Amino acid sequence: MVSYLVIAMTDRALALEWLSRQRVARLATADKTLAPHVVPVCFILATEGGSVYITIDEKPKDTGRPLKRIRNILENPQVALIADRWDEDWSQLAWVMARGSADILHDGTEHRAAQAALREKYPQYQSMTLACLPVIAIRIERVTWWGRLGG
Amino acid sequence: MVSYLVIAMTDRALALEWLSRQRVARLATADKTLAPHVVPVCFILATEGGSVYITIDEKPKDTGRPLKRIRNILENPQVALIADRWDEDWSQLAWVMARGSADILHDGTEHRAAQAALREKYPQYQSMTLACLPVIAIRIERVTWWGRLGG
Repeated sequence: MVSYLVIAMTDRALALEWLSRQRVARLATADKTLAPHVVPVCFILATEGGSVYITIDEKPKDTGRPLKRIRNILENPQVALIADRWDEDWSQLAWVMARGSADILHDGTEHRAAQAALREKYPQYQSMTLACLPVIAIRIERVTWWGRLGG
Repeated sequence: MVSYLVIAMTDRALALEWLSRQRVARLATADKTLAPHVVPVCFILATEGGSVYITIDEKPKDTGRPLKRIRNILENPQVALIADRWDEDWSQLAWVMARGSADILHDGTEHRAAQAALREKYPQYQSMTLACLPVIAIRIERVTWWGRLGG
C-alpha cells in the first residue's frame, strides 16, 4: 500500500517553486549613488527556498576590476531578482520577484554546494572551471508575484 | 533608377536597433534606501534612440498608492533597462542595457506620441484606456551590450 503525504503549498511556496523552474532571471543591484544595474543570470534556488545562488563564470575584465554586479553588492548588499514569462497572450504573463540581501562567497561548503547544484541545473557549466570564481548568495527576505503562475 | 543610401551603423546604434526589436525588457529602479526593484515591461525606443517609453496600464492598487516603479522614480530617477536573449546554446546569448534618468509624463504631446507608438508595437494595448495613465520616459545616457546581437 502506498501512502501519500499531501502538503498544501502556500502561495509563497508556489511562487518560489515556479521561480526555481525558470532557466533565466535578471539580477538588479544598485551602487551607493542609487544607480541601478541589471543583468540576466543563471541561478538556483536552494531546496528550502531561503537562498538563491548565482555563480560568476567569467574572468574579471582586463581592467582587473570585478564585475559591476559584484562591486555593487560590496557597496550595497540589497538586490532584487526577477524571473518572468513573456507571451503575446497577456493573460499568460507571470513574474516572481525575490528581494533580499546578498553575500559574496569565495570558498567553503556553501560555495561548493551552490556550484555543484548549478552544474546540475545547467550542463553548460560542466565544462567550465568555476571553483575559483565567487558565488552570489541572495538571502531571500521578500517574495512578490503576479499573473498566471500555473503551467 | 533606385539609389541606396548606405549608413554604417555604429556598435551602439546596432545595440539600440536590437533593443528596439525586443518585445519585453526589465526595468530596474531603486528607492532612496538603495533597495532595487525590477519588473518586466513593454517598451518602445524612440526612433532617434534617445528615449525609451513605458506606459502604465494598470490602475493604482487598492491602497491608492502609485506602483512601486513610479514611487522609486519619483524618489530617484536613475533607472536601468535590459533586454536579453536566452538560449540553451550559450553562444547565442545576448543582452543590451540602457541606463539613464527617467521622467514621469502625465499628459502632453510626448505622452500621447509614446502611447500611440506603444499601441502600434503592441496591439494588446489597443483595447485599453491608457490616456489617463502615466508614461515613464527614460532619457538614455549609457548603453552597454554583450553577446551575439546579430539575428
